[in-house]
Parts: sequence; C-alpha cells; structure tokens
Amino acid sequence: MPRTPAHPDAAQIDLSAVLDALRDPVRRAIVVMLDERGEKRCASFVHVASKTNLTYHLSRLREAGLVRVRPEGTVRIISLRREELQARFPGLLDAVLESARREPRLSERLAPA
Amino acid sequence: MPRTPAHPDAAQIDLSAVLDALRDPVRRAIVVMLDERGEKRCASFVHVASKTNLTYHLSRLREAGLVRVRPEGTVRIISLRREELQARFPGLLDAVLESARREPRLSERLAPA
Repeated sequence: MPRTPAHPDAAQIDLSAVLDALRDPVRRAIVVMLDERGEKRCASFVHVASKTNLTYHLSRLREAGLVRVRPEGTVRIISLRREELQARFPGLLDAVLESARREPRLSERLAPA
Repeated sequence: MPRTPAHPDAAQIDLSAVLDALRDPVRRAIVVMLDERGEKRCASFVHVASKTNLTYHLSRLREAGLVRVRPEGTVRIISLRREELQARFPGLLDAVLESARREPRLSERLAPA
C-alpha cells in the first residue's frame, strides 16, 4: 500500500514555489483539470504527459503545496488545495487558471473527461 | 546614447514567461516598487541587487513583457507594463503583487523611496 507523501502545511506554502510550479504549461493543464473535474487518480493524467514526466510534474505540484496526494488502496488520488491556496494567496490561483484557460494550446492538453 | 532594447508586443506576452519572471523574489520586489512608486531609473534598484544581478533581473522582466525600458539621455527608465498585462491576463499581476506584499522578506528588499 502506498504511503502518503510529504506536503507543506498551508502556512508554509511559498509564493516563489507556487509560481515556479505554475510556470510549466503541463502543470497548469493538470491544475485546470483538477479545478474543473474535481479530484482524480494519477492515471487520469496519462494523456497530459508520459508516466515518468507525470510523476515528476505531480511531485512538483505536491511539493509546492498546490495539490494533495492521498493513497487509496493501490492508487493515488490527486486533489487541488484550492481553499488553502485562496486563504494564503487570495485571487492568485483563480487568476492563473483564468489566464491558463485562454492559452490556445491548453485545450490540446486536456482530453475528454 | 543607449539603444531601446527589444520588448515583446502585448499580444506576444506569454503566461509561462510571466510566471517564470515573477517566481524570483528580487524580481517581485522590483515589480512591487515600480507599481507603488511609478517609473524609475535603473540606478533606483541598486539596493535590491548587485549591479550585475540587477542587469540580469531587469532583462528577464523586460523579455517576459513585465517592464518597459526606455533610454533617456544616458540613463534607462524602467516602467511597469500594467495596462497591457491586465488586458492580457486579467487580475494576475494584482494577485501576484498582493501576495508579494504579504511576504515577510519583501520589506527588507524595498529601500525608502
């Protein structure tokens, strides 16, 4: 059974780390998907990146405090830490998500639900 | 007389490049200063970073489309591209600035006007 990986506490979430996580278009596509469709298994993102890259991108998002990873049996469930991010950096996540949705290439990265 | 360096057009400003520019706390401090105090000479930022680092950080901000650099005689005047950024990514710059102002170390980087 997979262990729960480390997450920063809400108060430890760092602005530089959040912006660093969100500067990558693949990571923005993952965050947009989680925002629109709710929590997801790791496997839901296989069309966004190769398995190796996906592991890397999800770790970056988790370490920055953007997503929570929860083991459930043999799978891992990913969810967006929306409320915690909103409390710490008001308006920031929404502004990035809105800008990301306007990117012409974003829709190519998002497969049907 | 210094030449005007290259700037991206408003329509070319890229979200990844903007977030990449803003992930650095020195560059955020420069952007906060420009937002609060209006356009500034290069020399106004010498307390924020060494001259070499400052040249680098101002280039990164200019190339990402966050600031405009205008030669005036022998000096360079830096200004924030606030309206263009707001039109392209509504709310994004304000959200980053507000979050940056809450950072405990920001005030150390900002010298008196």
